[in-house]
Amino acid sequence: MTSSAVSALARYPVWQAPMAGGASCPALAAAVSEAGGLGFLAAGYKTPEAVREEVVQLRALLSGQSLGGQTLGGQTLGDRQRFGVNLFLPQPEPDGPTRAAVAEYRRRLAVEAERLATPLGDPDRSADDDFDAKVELLLADPVPVVSFTFGCPSPEVLKAFADVGTVTVATVTGAAEAVAARQAGADALCVQGVEAGGHQGTHRDDPRRDGSALGLLPLLAEVREAVPLPLVAAGGLMRGAQIAAVLAAGADAAQLGTAFLPCPESGAHPLHRQALTDPGFGWTELTRAFSGRPARGLVNRFMREHGGSAPSAYPQVHHLTAGLRQAAARSGDPQGMALWAGQGHRLARPLPAGELVRLLAEELRDAQES
Amino acid sequence: MTSSAVSALARYPVWQAPMAGGASCPALAAAVSEAGGLGFLAAGYKTPEAVREEVVQLRALLSGQSLGGQTLGGQTLGDRQRFGVNLFLPQPEPDGPTRAAVAEYRRRLAVEAERLATPLGDPDRSADDDFDAKVELLLADPVPVVSFTFGCPSPEVLKAFADVGTVTVATVTGAAEAVAARQAGADALCVQGVEAGGHQGTHRDDPRRDGSALGLLPLLAEVREAVPLPLVAAGGLMRGAQIAAVLAAGADAAQLGTAFLPCPESGAHPLHRQALTDPGFGWTELTRAFSGRPARGLVNRFMREHGGSAPSAYPQVHHLTAGLRQAAARSGDPQGMALWAGQGHRLARPLPAGELVRLLAEELRDAQES
Repeated sequence: MTSSAVSALARYPVWQAPMAGGASCPALAAAVSEAGGLGFLAAGYKTPEAVREEVVQLRALLSGQSLGGQTLGGQTLGDRQRFGVNLFLPQPEPDGPTRAAVAEYRRRLAVEAERLATPLGDPDRSADDDFDAKVELLLADPVPVVSFTFGCPSPEVLKAFADVGTVTVATVTGAAEAVAARQAGADALCVQGVEAGGHQGTHRDDPRRDGSALGLLPLLAEVREAVPLPLVAAGGLMRGAQIAAVLAAGADAAQLGTAFLPCPESGAHPLHRQALTDPGFGWTELTRAFSGRPARGLVNRFMREHGGSAPSAYPQVHHLTAGLRQAAARSGDPQGMALWAGQGHRLARPLPAGELVRLLAEELRDAQES
Repeated sequence: MTSSAVSALARYPVWQAPMAGGASCPALAAAVSEAGGLGFLAAGYKTPEAVREEVVQLRALLSGQSLGGQTLGGQTLGDRQRFGVNLFLPQPEPDGPTRAAVAEYRRRLAVEAERLATPLGDPDRSADDDFDAKVELLLADPVPVVSFTFGCPSPEVLKAFADVGTVTVATVTGAAEAVAARQAGADALCVQGVEAGGHQGTHRDDPRRDGSALGLLPLLAEVREAVPLPLVAAGGLMRGAQIAAVLAAGADAAQLGTAFLPCPESGAHPLHRQALTDPGFGWTELTRAFSGRPARGLVNRFMREHGGSAPSAYPQVHHLTAGLRQAAARSGDPQGMALWAGQGHRLARPLPAGELVRLLAEELRDAQES
């Protein structure tokens, strides 16, 4: 796959990041794609049936714009509407020490459960996010782009997507992951810097490497020199001039998440949107407090009190805290919610998503021309 | 001061970072400046007399290139040769709890001292790095550029430099520091991302904010929108395409440190140079283990064993460990040395500094033209 093929996926090199947990809904993806960006649905945490339903909704919202038979990844996309779907890779079953650490964290969170009169979730709910069923439905009814987080699928799965004309994008956080994804057959890479909000897409979580995550520019350079695939740069990007920057550094497109959170079309909770530019939230950090995997959010009480104790146990901790987070949101308490945000959160602009895409494209052009 | 004034300081927007501890010597600064970049001397840790001596040496190495009476910061630089000197700001006297924490860390390091048969240093050696005397000598015999790390000087000091025609550059790691530096009267800012090797130039070290340091692109955007000063971007930059990236994001020049470490002209220890691209050193992290302030280095035994216990106590911990680090270097043990490195260390190229400056300029042009 060539860089120009990635460029052909959307009028502007602006991809809306798939944000699992509700923010990336069909309305947001549709507004982004209609404006000339590339909208994404987040299949993570959803049932296959809910994913299918969102794809149907998104298609209905899109105006039938066509890719005009352009060839992508050797395949003809025909007249499918432009958008992507993101899948979470299955995670390994927890070993004994991990189960013990989760049980210990569960005891620690009992006070939170009592405070909110909400039971803790079952950490042993599925760890595979129904990956196989989601792959099956996306092969049966293909979409233009499928991206992957928390690992890279097998060569067989990637080949199956290629066979139905779907472009595959593996999320990577280092050169070794990039090389592995290329060897497996991914068409392109989403290169995610430490600045990114929400989960780091690292293929294997290793607490011994906490503190080693790379900033976007060093990461881009390392990956650019390690693999010849098209790259989509992600992490802390909020302005068109920053998109110009990552394009100059070798990326073919930029993926923005936090920038789209405050858009009226996003499914983000109102308290989450407000918190992004609330001076009461000073900064973001990576934490395992909510999910058991490093994810970047605005530092709040829950992160401060539990971040240091949370084990590396994803998605066990995610299941454990899901009810607590929902209860905190219902009770209007942002201090108990997962306020995912990238490092650029202060620059968030509450514009309609289409307007934001056009503004970013304009800022990009200005930066490239100056 | 205008952006074009910063551009006029050197033919290429390539500044060589001042690296205290020996790497930034007159030979390196001269080679960089002669090739069209901006070389820097690092006054930190040196006596005023040694700084004066280095300035004399550097001037003798420079070929007398002239700035041709260009006006910078409202002043005429006349025919002074192009280079800069970096100063460390005085640090507050340690309080009682800090002294106790240093004493505790000292007990922890006793085993290291015994192993190397080297006494620990006196943590109560001066904490002001002879700042006033260094300012005095640079006012008496001015240089084109003076940059500052670990804080911003008073308006009086900045005004005094302006009065003698010296351009002042304050290092900042956040928008609040940038606003403060502008209010104090700095001519330009060095904007240092979390990717940078060596010490973070944060004005006040606060362990409660560990984990909050910004990647270079989010930081540049925040500072760019907060203050109208010229910006020099620093942190993990190793290639001309990355320089193109930070220029697109609003910087006026890029400052590179690790990129120059392996140059034959640098004063870096041979083991330090070798470690940069040695696969045995997996990654970098920020640590207080060597100095008591967060600084990025290749993770080695000393960092792993002591990083978690090191107090926020700069320069007390620096003085404490200075002898250990020197002894480790003498005994050829990189596991006991401070192997400062930015996140891009794997891309280090052992070229003569002048050749590296020209290559970076060529890569920059290619990236801007593509």
